[in-house]
Amino acid sequence: MKQEFYEKTLTTNLIFNGKVIDLVVKDVELPDGNVSKREIVHHPGAVAIIALTKDNKILLVKQFRKPLEKTIIEIPAGKLEKGEDPLECAKRELEEETGYKAMNLKFVTSFYTSPGFADEIIHIYFTDDIEVGEVNFDDDEFLALMEVSLQEAEQLIEQQLIHDAKTVFAIQFLKLKGGLE
Amino acid sequence: MKQEFYEKTLTTNLIFNGKVIDLVVKDVELPDGNVSKREIVHHPGAVAIIALTKDNKILLVKQFRKPLEKTIIEIPAGKLEKGEDPLECAKRELEEETGYKAMNLKFVTSFYTSPGFADEIIHIYFTDDIEVGEVNFDDDEFLALMEVSLQEAEQLIEQQLIHDAKTVFAIQFLKLKGGLE
Repeated sequence: MKQEFYEKTLTTNLIFNGKVIDLVVKDVELPDGNVSKREIVHHPGAVAIIALTKDNKILLVKQFRKPLEKTIIEIPAGKLEKGEDPLECAKRELEEETGYKAMNLKFVTSFYTSPGFADEIIHIYFTDDIEVGEVNFDDDEFLALMEVSLQEAEQLIEQQLIHDAKTVFAIQFLKLKGGLE
Repeated sequence: MKQEFYEKTLTTNLIFNGKVIDLVVKDVELPDGNVSKREIVHHPGAVAIIALTKDNKILLVKQFRKPLEKTIIEIPAGKLEKGEDPLECAKRELEEETGYKAMNLKFVTSFYTSPGFADEIIHIYFTDDIEVGEVNFDDDEFLALMEVSLQEAEQLIEQQLIHDAKTVFAIQFLKLKGGLE
């Protein structure tokens, strides 16, 4: 289907083929017939999990993020492996990063993080039914698990320690559910 | 200040220096002494504006997003120019993209969109005090303005026509404000 304001690809130039992302530059024909360049990052997509413990604490992971040169606190998340089902990925990543198994994961929503330059999509899941499993970090992953109340999470936003789109979304989602007693 | 789980940069390799983004690959020393690679996109940062008309409609813009090969509907937004104050940028972008001038913009929050691979930060502003100004698109920008109710916006999320982090955030923000009557 032709999309409104469609930009036709004239040429595609692969600049970088990485471990996580690829970068391409495309010459496109604009709706008025002029030509412009689009710089585009391809990403495999990701999942993130809003998980509550039996005493209504939110599971968070503290992690150094090299692009920011900063340690921030996020909901558990991870990249999709090739051909992986997002729900299976969410189960796997939750257990690998937090040591908790989800008995039941409910799809919440999905969104593109940066549609201007990247195709990364995040699929968000929710669970309040978790049991102790087994932690198993990736080789290059260093994380600390935290379990915080909704009120503490809101303070972490104030302090800019929670500072990324999916985690700010998650806290709003929990507030809209009517808070956590 | 040394951050928890800090990853020391060993080498930095500039792969691409673009019009919008740069790409670098860094060799880093992990907390356990091993070495890994980080693929990092540098972005100038952006602003986005949650703007309500006098009859409580949300201003949205429909735009083709080449990375997604899809036309989606977003709150007005734009990239920071070098050294530009985010508040000034928000005023400028709102008028350029929608033709409305904000008399008053309130900072809501900021978040990183993709902290795993990019340093893009979005600063979000809110206004319910706008007046007719002058549209002035960028040369390579093709947009259609929409004014929708909160209920219509929620349907657009269901239809995945609203499908990006900042706009999903904006709709949640308006719901948390207690809806729009």
